[in-house]
Amino acid sequence: MNSAIIVAAGRGTRMGANADKLFLEVAGRPVVAHTWQRFNDVQCIDEIVLVVRDGMQSAFAELAVQFNLQKAHRFVTGGAERQDSVWNGLESLSSCVELVAIQDAARPCTSESLISATLEAACETGAAVAAQPVTDTIKESADGRTILRNVERSRLWSVQTPQTFRVDVIRRALAEVRRRGLSVTDDTAACELIGQPVRLVAGVGPNPKVTLPGDLPYIETLLRQYRA
Amino acid sequence: MNSAIIVAAGRGTRMGANADKLFLEVAGRPVVAHTWQRFNDVQCIDEIVLVVRDGMQSAFAELAVQFNLQKAHRFVTGGAERQDSVWNGLESLSSCVELVAIQDAARPCTSESLISATLEAACETGAAVAAQPVTDTIKESADGRTILRNVERSRLWSVQTPQTFRVDVIRRALAEVRRRGLSVTDDTAACELIGQPVRLVAGVGPNPKVTLPGDLPYIETLLRQYRA
Repeated sequence: MNSAIIVAAGRGTRMGANADKLFLEVAGRPVVAHTWQRFNDVQCIDEIVLVVRDGMQSAFAELAVQFNLQKAHRFVTGGAERQDSVWNGLESLSSCVELVAIQDAARPCTSESLISATLEAACETGAAVAAQPVTDTIKESADGRTILRNVERSRLWSVQTPQTFRVDVIRRALAEVRRRGLSVTDDTAACELIGQPVRLVAGVGPNPKVTLPGDLPYIETLLRQYRA
Repeated sequence: MNSAIIVAAGRGTRMGANADKLFLEVAGRPVVAHTWQRFNDVQCIDEIVLVVRDGMQSAFAELAVQFNLQKAHRFVTGGAERQDSVWNGLESLSSCVELVAIQDAARPCTSESLISATLEAACETGAAVAAQPVTDTIKESADGRTILRNVERSRLWSVQTPQTFRVDVIRRALAEVRRRGLSVTDDTAACELIGQPVRLVAGVGPNPKVTLPGDLPYIETLLRQYRA
């Protein structure tokens, strides 16, 4: 059995003071409803755990009704940091779950084929992440003002979500993060701590995250293409 | 006096066999006509050198008529590599040019304020480049298959164009590239060879390059916003 954890407990402060970015409307529905739909529709996911801020459960429950998201799902309350929210989601999984795909709620363009591909790779190696080779010219700067040196981009990958794991692997990795009192920005970084290799799974199309208000028109274009 | 060199001699092979990406229509005109328009309209640029493939001069001359691009401009034939094309452009500058902004023709969304800001920074320090802090989570992989390590992204910048220089600086830097028989992917890399510091100039909005066919809808959205 495979589960998805959609991490929807962040506030997205870079979008502006009063906007909850997950409920901003894009291509006819809130951002998070697109993300949820992808995991609702993909066959290889059996249930969905949505990690949400306390008090937001009813708003999410309404989305399920409005957009007919019928796959088994439940809501879990988020923690202080992203890693705490993921932890809470993992705690809620039933004991028969083998693989878990962890997804940013603010990444609404993730394709079903990418979700499947990360599950297959995680089944084989224990841990996998959606990724794309860096195509920009990258420079290092110590002060953000002057270039220090050129960085060899052929070795660089930009990682996204889903980040997909055998459940025992990600539980062990995040337990190690907590034991050491660390903070990690993504779940694959936790795997480094326990020496667990992470497979890169190259996505075909763009898989952007809603971060700034200026991201929305681009994402609108992608979503309309996907549904066309 | 300040010049712009628009490097328009590439074929853009990643766009598909028969498409010249610079002449693909986006937001009502060919890609390169948008780029040219920005440098035509910005006050701080006095003349424009377009480096084009041999035989393409008349196609570009038609664009100038069609889109009323009246600022002084001329055409120079490109070389084998991008750095040769830039060299040919530099060779064509009149002796009174102090600063030169070198621009990818396939980057049609560059704002006038960004062009001006790179000129100001280059006037002060000798070399400057449009850049944005890397916002994605970046991993290093030796084999493109498994993550080797996390890369500290706070020191990483993605560089774009314009790359803007005092003319004597970029001439000296590219002469050194040629003397050593090297190949450089961008002009600021040439500056490293002569110990010339390069200032990062953070752009406000997106400044993407047309590389793959899938880039066009996003760029269309940006261009329509700009003109709205």
